[in-house]
Amino acid sequence: MNYLIVLNVIGWVITFEGAFLLVPTFTAMIYGEPEGIPFLLCAIASALGGFLITRIKPKSRHFYAREGYVICALTWLVISLIGAIPLLQCGAFHSYVDALFEIVSGFTTTGSSVIADLSHIPHCVLIWRSFSHWVGGMGVLVFIISVLPLFGGQDMQIMKAESPGPSVGKLVPNVRKTASYLYNIYIVITILQFIILLATNMDPFSAICITLGTAGTGGFGIVNSSCANYTFVQQVIVTIFMMLFGVNFNLYFYLSKGKYRDAFSIEEVRWYFGIYAAAVIFIVLNIANNGQTLTVNIKDAAFSVAAVMTTTGYATADFDKWPMFSRCILVTVMFIGACAGSTGGGMKVSRIMIYLKSLKKELSCMIHQKSVKIIKMDGKAVDHKVLRNANVFLVSYVIIFFASFLLITLDNFDFETSFTSVVATLNNIGPGLGMVGPTGNFSAFSTRSKIVLIFDMLTGRLEIFPMLLLIYPKTWSRK
Amino acid sequence: MNYLIVLNVIGWVITFEGAFLLVPTFTAMIYGEPEGIPFLLCAIASALGGFLITRIKPKSRHFYAREGYVICALTWLVISLIGAIPLLQCGAFHSYVDALFEIVSGFTTTGSSVIADLSHIPHCVLIWRSFSHWVGGMGVLVFIISVLPLFGGQDMQIMKAESPGPSVGKLVPNVRKTASYLYNIYIVITILQFIILLATNMDPFSAICITLGTAGTGGFGIVNSSCANYTFVQQVIVTIFMMLFGVNFNLYFYLSKGKYRDAFSIEEVRWYFGIYAAAVIFIVLNIANNGQTLTVNIKDAAFSVAAVMTTTGYATADFDKWPMFSRCILVTVMFIGACAGSTGGGMKVSRIMIYLKSLKKELSCMIHQKSVKIIKMDGKAVDHKVLRNANVFLVSYVIIFFASFLLITLDNFDFETSFTSVVATLNNIGPGLGMVGPTGNFSAFSTRSKIVLIFDMLTGRLEIFPMLLLIYPKTWSRK
Repeated sequence: MNYLIVLNVIGWVITFEGAFLLVPTFTAMIYGEPEGIPFLLCAIASALGGFLITRIKPKSRHFYAREGYVICALTWLVISLIGAIPLLQCGAFHSYVDALFEIVSGFTTTGSSVIADLSHIPHCVLIWRSFSHWVGGMGVLVFIISVLPLFGGQDMQIMKAESPGPSVGKLVPNVRKTASYLYNIYIVITILQFIILLATNMDPFSAICITLGTAGTGGFGIVNSSCANYTFVQQVIVTIFMMLFGVNFNLYFYLSKGKYRDAFSIEEVRWYFGIYAAAVIFIVLNIANNGQTLTVNIKDAAFSVAAVMTTTGYATADFDKWPMFSRCILVTVMFIGACAGSTGGGMKVSRIMIYLKSLKKELSCMIHQKSVKIIKMDGKAVDHKVLRNANVFLVSYVIIFFASFLLITLDNFDFETSFTSVVATLNNIGPGLGMVGPTGNFSAFSTRSKIVLIFDMLTGRLEIFPMLLLIYPKTWSRK
Repeated sequence: MNYLIVLNVIGWVITFEGAFLLVPTFTAMIYGEPEGIPFLLCAIASALGGFLITRIKPKSRHFYAREGYVICALTWLVISLIGAIPLLQCGAFHSYVDALFEIVSGFTTTGSSVIADLSHIPHCVLIWRSFSHWVGGMGVLVFIISVLPLFGGQDMQIMKAESPGPSVGKLVPNVRKTASYLYNIYIVITILQFIILLATNMDPFSAICITLGTAGTGGFGIVNSSCANYTFVQQVIVTIFMMLFGVNFNLYFYLSKGKYRDAFSIEEVRWYFGIYAAAVIFIVLNIANNGQTLTVNIKDAAFSVAAVMTTTGYATADFDKWPMFSRCILVTVMFIGACAGSTGGGMKVSRIMIYLKSLKKELSCMIHQKSVKIIKMDGKAVDHKVLRNANVFLVSYVIIFFASFLLITLDNFDFETSFTSVVATLNNIGPGLGMVGPTGNFSAFSTRSKIVLIFDMLTGRLEIFPMLLLIYPKTWSRK
């Protein structure tokens, strides 16, 4: 293990966090909020402390996959541990673990909150929560890659560890250029949503926060009603942008290059919209007799499915009051999640495709024992390593799910609450059902459960392996 | 597809069912029950009809894996469809689907019941339910293999399709001998349990039924209280035998051959008892303050964990009243299940081991990218095909689970009931939690849900692939 390179990168991460913390600091200045002072102090401390750490130069900049995963896991831990500190002063959190839960939920773009009442929360805290979604959505390290030549040509290890999806492809041969392409696309669509929301007369602060939360597929609301009190048109706009940020960003890359045929033939994107449409239709049929008009039902179903499938987690309707079938469709799409290479979470549509295709292949092999079949995506054979990784992903996902679920049940809440609290955090969604439904929050859980859920949020965002390797003893062996 | 060999084997299966149906017929004669007449008529019709079908000789006795899976799936469908008919006359079932649910639950050794009150059910029906557990436990086709040379040397295809576990090994080079070894061991332990229960002054009829239900890891009770009203000693005996029937039968084979070292070094069996002990200890600690003595709590926890882990499903305590943590430990061991090569259901301990070992291997590979690691069980490398199959098993298991769960939720029962009804049937356990807990039953579900759960029970018992292939269009293609 090349400890010094790990330390060096973490130093840079802390420095960058100092810069990120200026966003809430300036917001506090604009609104004249005294809660801005801890943000300012924390920003200065981070920038200085981080910079000092970066002065410890590693002997070699060379590293392997192991260091990549460890850097990735530690980065996310460290930005959260630091990012929670200034939250403590606003009075909304009873303990450091609560504040940590909130900011981990922010960075991992989960959007689960322990705050019961948002009406007294200062603007600087609200923007820090929403901005953490935006930073976490595309990835902290991907951002650093795009601006700093830190990794001596081994950026791919880092990119692989931090980016979601079974196989991370380079859009262009150069990894740094890929990272900055992604961030450019991300910034452009973010600005687009902000402008459109402004055009509907939404106040600028709400528009910024809602846009940042949509872009990162995070879902922290800034009022208690989440998105329920915005206008019909605004809700439709948010629905569309949630779906757009859940799309594999390769699509936008192809579009920007004029490769329309490539863009519209991405299998994952087709499946993504297919699953979305099916879920919406089933729910609209199921809730038809709830006394609302068909238009409202379609809008609410379209919004809610987009919110949970892209793992954003905003809410317009209290879907916890829907019939069990509709609620369980939502739970199912929670597991499926968004596209690989998007800012969304969950298992990812392409992984589900790999699973279905390998099932089909296995059935064919059972019928014709000697046939050799290859699993293809977008016309190309899927590498054996990707398949194996997807399988092990499912295994570890199920194990972590059950382990977390068991630990949560020690709090003795009902089955639905316990189960969906893990679903909502491990898939980085936000709300679950029952006590943690769209109108509830996570404050009632014990500190032990909150720590478990913090682990789940980080594990979900980093797609399991970096976090597992962090606690796997052999990772730290000298050999 | 060699249709005629399929038809021929199914003919033999029906003939054998005619013989099986004599058990309830004779029981009815002993107790002077008029409900025996439909059993007698059905026995005669099956024996004759089946025998007539076997007269249609296939041109070739040669077949492939495809026919093996189809024979297996059809066998289980046909014995259930026929076995349900005589149940209809006893008045306990409102429809044919209800009777079918009950007998599928019997043959698949699930033990989920739609009968709300067992006190008026005639002895012949009770024994038919319990006897179906015993027949289904070791397998209908395995039984036929052991007595009839039907498959022209291709018995292994059938054995593989019907026997549970990721890799089915031959105990002796000859498959027919393996099958008869297994049945001999099965019969010996069954008789042993029966004699021991008799020695505790249990009445002979109860002793037979409870023994048959334990041996097949089925779990149909013959009184409403399941096993709660038997004596402490009797409950301990049932606990021990449930665990014994959940063990990989290879253990008994080695023991009978005097290979003690081989017997006690089977990794799966060690894990099986290890998981069992851990679950019991956690539950005893969790329910410590429920007002019962420690001895009673240990007995109830030991009984309940054995009941759900071996997927038998008998009950002494109403574990639905336990704290959520204990209930969810039970749900977790429900998924894990018993050993491969036992009469138990679930995913099987050895599959869980394969999953954990492949996770460990993947983590090691991530640390040392160039290392090549092999997954071993009992000191031998696990074949790549077995690994792939285990992975696809998990994929299809999860898919079927969610599809069933969604269809069940259309009945709009609570989350816990909907979720655990699928857990309990797909893993062939019997009781779940909530409405389908140890004191509840499955009668409230709609016919649609019952059909889904019937499919799940069959799918669980046959470990998914035979049932999937039955509904996979390509299976039936001419090519």
